[in-house]
Amino acid sequence: MLRRLAVVGVGLLGGSVAKVARGHGLAREIVGVGRDERRLRPALDDGTLDRVTTDLAAGVRDADLIVLAVPVLAIETLLPAVWRAAADDAVLTDVGSAKRAIVEAAQRLAAGRAVAFVGSHPMAGSERSGFEVARPDLFKGATVIVTPGETSPPAAVKMVTTFWEGAGAGRVVLLDADTHDRAVAAISHVPHLVAYALMDGVARFQPAALDVAARGFRDTTRIAASESTMWEEIFLANRDALRAGLRDFERALADLVRLVEAGDPVALRAALDRIKAHREGLA
Amino acid sequence: MLRRLAVVGVGLLGGSVAKVARGHGLAREIVGVGRDERRLRPALDDGTLDRVTTDLAAGVRDADLIVLAVPVLAIETLLPAVWRAAADDAVLTDVGSAKRAIVEAAQRLAAGRAVAFVGSHPMAGSERSGFEVARPDLFKGATVIVTPGETSPPAAVKMVTTFWEGAGAGRVVLLDADTHDRAVAAISHVPHLVAYALMDGVARFQPAALDVAARGFRDTTRIAASESTMWEEIFLANRDALRAGLRDFERALADLVRLVEAGDPVALRAALDRIKAHREGLA
Repeated sequence: MLRRLAVVGVGLLGGSVAKVARGHGLAREIVGVGRDERRLRPALDDGTLDRVTTDLAAGVRDADLIVLAVPVLAIETLLPAVWRAAADDAVLTDVGSAKRAIVEAAQRLAAGRAVAFVGSHPMAGSERSGFEVARPDLFKGATVIVTPGETSPPAAVKMVTTFWEGAGAGRVVLLDADTHDRAVAAISHVPHLVAYALMDGVARFQPAALDVAARGFRDTTRIAASESTMWEEIFLANRDALRAGLRDFERALADLVRLVEAGDPVALRAALDRIKAHREGLA
Repeated sequence: MLRRLAVVGVGLLGGSVAKVARGHGLAREIVGVGRDERRLRPALDDGTLDRVTTDLAAGVRDADLIVLAVPVLAIETLLPAVWRAAADDAVLTDVGSAKRAIVEAAQRLAAGRAVAFVGSHPMAGSERSGFEVARPDLFKGATVIVTPGETSPPAAVKMVTTFWEGAGAGRVVLLDADTHDRAVAAISHVPHLVAYALMDGVARFQPAALDVAARGFRDTTRIAASESTMWEEIFLANRDALRAGLRDFERALADLVRLVEAGDPVALRAALDRIKAHREGLA
């Protein structure tokens, strides 16, 4: 059990971290840090947090574990201040969806002062956001990717892993930051950009067709209702891996279009059968 | 109430048509036509059908309403034989996902003999197929597009519309075949091809990433587990409208990629906000 957990950014992810830590007794005291005291009140009022503050340094000081749960570009921006304020034996983690820039920033800071940083990325979320949709079971059964850097002490990796397991994660997968960024570009960031484009292509060029949209379209574009601020930051933060993932997608699409244009039912069906088998193979 | 309903092709859609007709008392006798007598047996055994036959002409003769529920390319192929066998006062409809070629074929046949044909496309389905997944509530609340041609008698349009309403459709929308084909390309055929490409791009070029795929990826690629035979036919049957829909999608995607590459957070967020609003506007 942690003596003190500090959660910076009490929205969907940070709020869910605090709720599960409270519910599962993972920390004795839970401190919430945010920019707007009024927006922190509901988490204080419902007993999720013991204390709230808008003073970042005061909030993270003396915490055993600091979880940065602000939008991905803000994590990099806040890191130097958190680094300065953290206790010598504190462990820092985050929940950002793109990792290379954050891990590199932590490594540069670690050259000045040895603070234990280990990146995390819980593969859980919602197209909705904010503390009002936070829930203690958000991480239940989820995969959490933990991305140790060269300067991450093994004991800190262990602590962060144990924390996510305690929060209900189905499994914790260790990946280096670059591998993480390419993997999440492929299975999350490219699909989000494509879902936005699917929605936008119809809205702009065939708006009347939306009137007959059925479940297939709703499912495929559900994530196009995600929070714009969050996804604008993710796309920009993971631009390089996103570009590479888009190339893979566009190559696969061009191959399928070629089969359709060739009008060869046997070859087209073989390709769809192969893809269907991959989709059915998803655990 | 119909005296006799003939369903040609007793799979997911045809089986569901027969089940709801039975359950809602839409027809006194329901005849199922298929190529393989053994595969028709379950629908006879469970009381969905009164009679089954592999003889198309015998099966549709004397039916008031004939529903062609075979794969989309087979509808066009079977149409001349159904046309010859149908009673003078029979009404023919189908459930095909692409309409121009079918409606044109019906119009050519109508020049020889006046049989009432009115195309239908119930916007309901599943990534699974076959009579074993057919259910009487498949059309409940669904949109059904009905595509009258120049030679469709108004009384037949009314009868087909009434039939779908009786089957539980939430609403029946009348569209001409070309408008239908463009609309379903936009909201169904392009999303399916894109979902296949998303799945394939990761499976071929980033297979390890599938290990961390979460709900967003599953939802976006769910329809890539659809039946290959069906979708191979739909893509080929609706190739022209699919090509046009893909151009719209690719234009929307290129615009988003340009905003990401420009690194302009304000413009990118404005675009995502606009798209999110469209997605939230889907009924």
